[in-house]
Amino acid sequence: MAAYSSLEGKANFTPPDNLPTKIPCGEVTRYIVDCLTATGAPLHGAHALAEVLVAADTRGHYSHGLNRLEMYVNDLKRGLCDGAATPTIEKESVSTALVQGNNGLGPVVGKFCMNLAIEKARETGIGWVAARGSNHYGIAGYYAMMASSQGLMGMSFTNTSPIVAPTRAKAGVLGTNPICLAAPGRTIDDPFVLDMATCTAAAGKIEIQNRKGEPLPDGWAMGTDGKVTTDPKEAMKASALLPLGGDELHSGYKGYGLAMMVEVFCGIMAGSHFGPNIRKWFQTEEPADLGHAFVAIDQSFFAPGFEGRMGDLMDHCRNMEPVDPEKPVLVAGDPERSCEERIRREGGVTYLAQQMNESWKLAKLLGVEPMKGL
Amino acid sequence: MAAYSSLEGKANFTPPDNLPTKIPCGEVTRYIVDCLTATGAPLHGAHALAEVLVAADTRGHYSHGLNRLEMYVNDLKRGLCDGAATPTIEKESVSTALVQGNNGLGPVVGKFCMNLAIEKARETGIGWVAARGSNHYGIAGYYAMMASSQGLMGMSFTNTSPIVAPTRAKAGVLGTNPICLAAPGRTIDDPFVLDMATCTAAAGKIEIQNRKGEPLPDGWAMGTDGKVTTDPKEAMKASALLPLGGDELHSGYKGYGLAMMVEVFCGIMAGSHFGPNIRKWFQTEEPADLGHAFVAIDQSFFAPGFEGRMGDLMDHCRNMEPVDPEKPVLVAGDPERSCEERIRREGGVTYLAQQMNESWKLAKLLGVEPMKGL
Repeated sequence: MAAYSSLEGKANFTPPDNLPTKIPCGEVTRYIVDCLTATGAPLHGAHALAEVLVAADTRGHYSHGLNRLEMYVNDLKRGLCDGAATPTIEKESVSTALVQGNNGLGPVVGKFCMNLAIEKARETGIGWVAARGSNHYGIAGYYAMMASSQGLMGMSFTNTSPIVAPTRAKAGVLGTNPICLAAPGRTIDDPFVLDMATCTAAAGKIEIQNRKGEPLPDGWAMGTDGKVTTDPKEAMKASALLPLGGDELHSGYKGYGLAMMVEVFCGIMAGSHFGPNIRKWFQTEEPADLGHAFVAIDQSFFAPGFEGRMGDLMDHCRNMEPVDPEKPVLVAGDPERSCEERIRREGGVTYLAQQMNESWKLAKLLGVEPMKGL
Repeated sequence: MAAYSSLEGKANFTPPDNLPTKIPCGEVTRYIVDCLTATGAPLHGAHALAEVLVAADTRGHYSHGLNRLEMYVNDLKRGLCDGAATPTIEKESVSTALVQGNNGLGPVVGKFCMNLAIEKARETGIGWVAARGSNHYGIAGYYAMMASSQGLMGMSFTNTSPIVAPTRAKAGVLGTNPICLAAPGRTIDDPFVLDMATCTAAAGKIEIQNRKGEPLPDGWAMGTDGKVTTDPKEAMKASALLPLGGDELHSGYKGYGLAMMVEVFCGIMAGSHFGPNIRKWFQTEEPADLGHAFVAIDQSFFAPGFEGRMGDLMDHCRNMEPVDPEKPVLVAGDPERSCEERIRREGGVTYLAQQMNESWKLAKLLGVEPMKGL
């Protein structure tokens, strides 16, 4: 995880003081679409990517939203990703498919695959789609929620650049490889949404700490010497995050095993790059050739009453006595739902000032209109 | 997780000194089958359960082998589990099924479901089978490896008695809910086998520490006051293990989310008991009505060359430079494979003396021949 070398020429622009930091979602979308089309992406692909990035920010996953735009722009500018490509089905059964992404934008590949999985799930109860030849697709949750918003169960997995160290190893060789499940709850607007990297803390969180200039909590990452570090710069240099669980005594090998499982679903099943063969973070000399997996399940093919049981379990957890009375017990998806509600209430997303400066410079470089505040 | 109250009358028997501790696998199997048939189970079911328990011991998962026999005997004796029951298919598509276990032995249900999933995977690329009305099925790995031993991918999940605390909560409400994936490697005897509880340490490991009279590592479990404890007795009393990751700062909510995910695949999809509705550990007043999930995938429906890529990734990890030169980097399934090889070399499983004493007393109580050593 080398420090990101920003786009050539961007440093020539000096942002004005006091740029707005609270931006309406529509305006963030407009800005992202403008940046991508200015880089040569067609409108359809630009919108698909903008939608996923804005979804990340409104759900509070800031590392995967606007924060990542420059990486996509860079890949498009250098011709490493083909903004105009559309995916093709290479192999298919009633319940499975292998999709070739043709090096298109990750969200274009992802939406295509998840729609295909949903179609198959409605026919046979399950659709399992593996994709290769793809690029970063943003938050896994976006695709899983495509299914849950239609009343089905959805799962999504992706491999990513090598940065997580196997237990006992000194270097990162697996991605932060997320696991995501969205399952309908009692009502359509109360799904269970688990969307988690299989390391203790996602790479994006290390980036954010680095951007804020704040230390890492103990146990998130190793330094180049194989010892745990709290320095985000050292962590980014070493590219050796700890898997979920942490050290061996605390079962970090389980997180390592889960990261491997996700790689099995992605690169190994789809035949894309995998593990150590994937390009390093922000190393932009070759196409990413990432692998993803998308699963949709129609729970009506199993026992009736799924949504009621799901709601019962979620509510049981939420109503449990907390250790600290000020910190209520939550269910996966609750923090994101609260964040979405707050942003709706406030009328926009509030970004860090540094993020706004970088976005302003990118706008100037690409010749698009900078974002306007509320 | 109340301390286990052993079978009535067992305490009347006093084992002789110096019982053998190293027992050939065939003899362990004979003993387990004798105990189960003496309790009224038919030979077929007794063999199915014995095979799974011996597999656990030979793979080094001692908590799930002979250590658990008394629990199964107890359920059979009290008529809480029907040793003679056979599972029935309630609902079926080309790729899915819902199976009613009819309160039969867990391994009888499990083998039936996994065979069904494998059959469907061969037809459509994937088989996803949910089961309800079942009982403890032993190690999840046994079922996943039924698929990998036939050259396919296998997954298995089960819910279990509530003992894992949601992040921020004081009490256990989810099971140790294991996730298991077995995937063929370069050769048929070198599969990737991830078989992990979604808590930091499985309940069985706490039992074993308790049996040994040794303290728990920090961060495995909470006491009745909601604080981390190292006392296995206090941990068993509180029934509040920490999910994988540990506390909130170290992303324990991810382990909590994974435990919920497994429950979604099991109790919520299958319509069995789930979460807090499942009977407590060793609480033996009602049938368990557990839920399981079994998935088989024929990877030939996806990109060709799966086994080579899987082998490459496994070997890459194994050959990485370790932090401690004396501790080589392993891959999920390696420790179990080493254990199996050692036991084959030594000609039998070596148990704790206390385990042998308990097994001797159980033999006397049931009127079966105690185990003979090598």
